[in-house]
Amino acid sequence: MGGDELILLNYWASMFGARVKIALEEKGLNYEYREEDLPNKSPLLLQMNPVHKKIPVLIHNGKPICESNIIVQYIDEFWNDKAPLLPSDPYERAQARFWADYIDKKLYNSGGKITWCKNKEEAEEGKKEVLEIFKVLEGALGDKPYFGGTKQTSSIVGLQLSRDPREKHEKEHARIVQFLRRSRMKWVIS
Amino acid sequence: MGGDELILLNYWASMFGARVKIALEEKGLNYEYREEDLPNKSPLLLQMNPVHKKIPVLIHNGKPICESNIIVQYIDEFWNDKAPLLPSDPYERAQARFWADYIDKKLYNSGGKITWCKNKEEAEEGKKEVLEIFKVLEGALGDKPYFGGTKQTSSIVGLQLSRDPREKHEKEHARIVQFLRRSRMKWVIS
Repeated sequence: MGGDELILLNYWASMFGARVKIALEEKGLNYEYREEDLPNKSPLLLQMNPVHKKIPVLIHNGKPICESNIIVQYIDEFWNDKAPLLPSDPYERAQARFWADYIDKKLYNSGGKITWCKNKEEAEEGKKEVLEIFKVLEGALGDKPYFGGTKQTSSIVGLQLSRDPREKHEKEHARIVQFLRRSRMKWVIS
Repeated sequence: MGGDELILLNYWASMFGARVKIALEEKGLNYEYREEDLPNKSPLLLQMNPVHKKIPVLIHNGKPICESNIIVQYIDEFWNDKAPLLPSDPYERAQARFWADYIDKKLYNSGGKITWCKNKEEAEEGKKEVLEIFKVLEGALGDKPYFGGTKQTSSIVGLQLSRDPREKHEKEHARIVQFLRRSRMKWVIS
């Protein structure tokens, strides 16, 4: 859709922002990227997301959409003619949403313990939890190629894993890395 | 759809379960209700939701769907021929999802401080936070009849508010109570 103006307010290190970037790129959409200085947020960010005051925010023809999972669904529903991010079958959609939600609820907290650990013990606890989460995900994936869906239609699960796992963890969760490769989202494991 | 077998595993006091019950009733669906004894969960619950081991679970022709928000979307997408719970326009859907998510993230924690308070201070803090949340919701609703959508199509926001607010708080958040009345979900304010 040529006439659409898309602006993404983001911060480079955000895993939530990364989901939106990947979704936009999966759909082949052009957008203007604006990096936010988080300790000194722009008036535009505060105006567009007055409730949470957080990135990422996607501004589509002047109208804001906030919260990464909601933005991704919006992108999928508005540009529904290419690269679907969710399966079309309601049950498979529910399964994909379940695993996306699981990753959201679990991985962020446990991963945070590693990134922002106060001491070694906390980092070790976080690492243990992350490995446990991937064990559950590997079990759920089993021998299937995707989490509920076919081809890239379960990309929404892959999006949640953006930046995790990196290739260096390939041994511990080889199936998940293969799933991400299969989902064509190579950049999430770079 | 006559041939569908629907079983809801639930616990009567759960606000999450209440959402699913209301969604089923909005759609006019018949279902078998099974009350769970939470300290002694049934083998069926553990089998159907092995990851979270939590109610509510909707079992549709033998297949489980877990997590209230995911169940509600599944119900809306599978029985999409009546009583839509989300608007059809992608932007309005995003708005409805935003407010449903806001309520989910904020209200449960603050409301919990009142229900399970350790002392008066915590209860007071919870009450203050809940009033603040409703102030934001009232501001967002403004003079519009619904949160992004028309008629009952923004019911998903109302579902999140099941049991809150009760009528006794009508003075503090009259607009929200009127929104729930408009959304036809009378039972949520009983």
